[in-house]
Amino acid sequence: MRTYTGEVKIRTSKRLEILDITDQVQEVISGSGISEGFVVIWEPHTTATVAVNENDPELWQDILEKFTELVPIKGNYRHNAKYGGIASEQNAHAHILNCLSGSSISIPLVKGRLVLGTWQRILFIELDGPRSRKVILQIVGE
Amino acid sequence: MRTYTGEVKIRTSKRLEILDITDQVQEVISGSGISEGFVVIWEPHTTATVAVNENDPELWQDILEKFTELVPIKGNYRHNAKYGGIASEQNAHAHILNCLSGSSISIPLVKGRLVLGTWQRILFIELDGPRSRKVILQIVGE
Amino acid sequence: MRTYTGEVKIRTSKRLEILDITDQVQEVISGSGISEGFVVIWEPHTTATVAVNENDPELWQDILEKFTELVPIKGNYRHNAKYGGIASEQNAHAHILNCLSGSSISIPLVKGRLVLGTWQRILFIELDGPRSRKVILQIVGE
Repeated sequence: MRTYTGEVKIRTSKRLEILDITDQVQEVISGSGISEGFVVIWEPHTTATVAVNENDPELWQDILEKFTELVPIKGNYRHNAKYGGIASEQNAHAHILNCLSGSSISIPLVKGRLVLGTWQRILFIELDGPRSRKVILQIVGE
Repeated sequence: MRTYTGEVKIRTSKRLEILDITDQVQEVISGSGISEGFVVIWEPHTTATVAVNENDPELWQDILEKFTELVPIKGNYRHNAKYGGIASEQNAHAHILNCLSGSSISIPLVKGRLVLGTWQRILFIELDGPRSRKVILQIVGE
Repeated sequence: MRTYTGEVKIRTSKRLEILDITDQVQEVISGSGISEGFVVIWEPHTTATVAVNENDPELWQDILEKFTELVPIKGNYRHNAKYGGIASEQNAHAHILNCLSGSSISIPLVKGRLVLGTWQRILFIELDGPRSRKVILQIVGE
């Protein structure tokens, strides 16, 4: 067994946005030469998150709307008040949603492919864009 | 070190339901012959989720009630409207809750056993049943 | 490749509290001698959770306030009613938040270090303290 470290670069263009990064993740895995094991999808940011769900732009709007209904962008956040003069730091909502949704996903690999259900796609969820982002892939197996 | 892929089949009987699948997961692990390492519990569906918590049916009702209070089954979801004529696709709530709660859990294995705290059990959370479901287990170790 | 099991002991002092445990986690990893692979951070409790986010005590207050606004400590929970006479079991909110936020995080290791983004720190989130807690670390690699 061995370990291979790769990454997928992402450029988001909106404050809130969901991108399907499945093909880029699979491409890195195929290049690693590892066929049986798993990949840790690691999101190294504190104001975005990753999930695995359907590729449906209407659903993505539903997800973003519900996320920011539960944790509104504008609120009485201490974090935002402390950085009151800094436009790029008005993002407590994004930090909180990251803590709920999570920073890592582990997906099994079999015969060199991600084991995904019929409707499963790997989604990068931008919560405080637009920004340059990345996802780190730690691939472990043989 | 090596990798073993197994699965647990699940049959849910309600729209919303929590099932304790710990014993079935442990059985697959015991059959794998791997004793030191970890298991990735991978839920390959987009309208269910997995969690690790107490086996308490009253608590399970509390969990399902709160989940659907935060993300109601009935709502102005674009996903549901798009599939307005399809009863089985009125499930945006389930997709959104999956994005919050997550599709994978990694649990350490020591001496062939899941390392679980006193009250921890592996829970399959059905959010859009009844359906035939499964959980894939990727067991890695020696 | 091999597996190393370690742990970090934690003592919380409040009902709700966030502690930065990054340094203790890194110390266990450094002691393991494993430099390439990943660590599973496993939280073996049902009324606490782990996340990866910024070390900002004001933000931590925002997180705890929002968590308990979404899932209030006081509520009509069946779990709490069943254990009505037991003060230490009035904690359905903590169980539910654990199911949303999760019990495990997998983080890549490269050159013996946790692969963390600029603002990422490993946070232990106490939801029903004060208690003695621990986090188990399953380190896998070479």
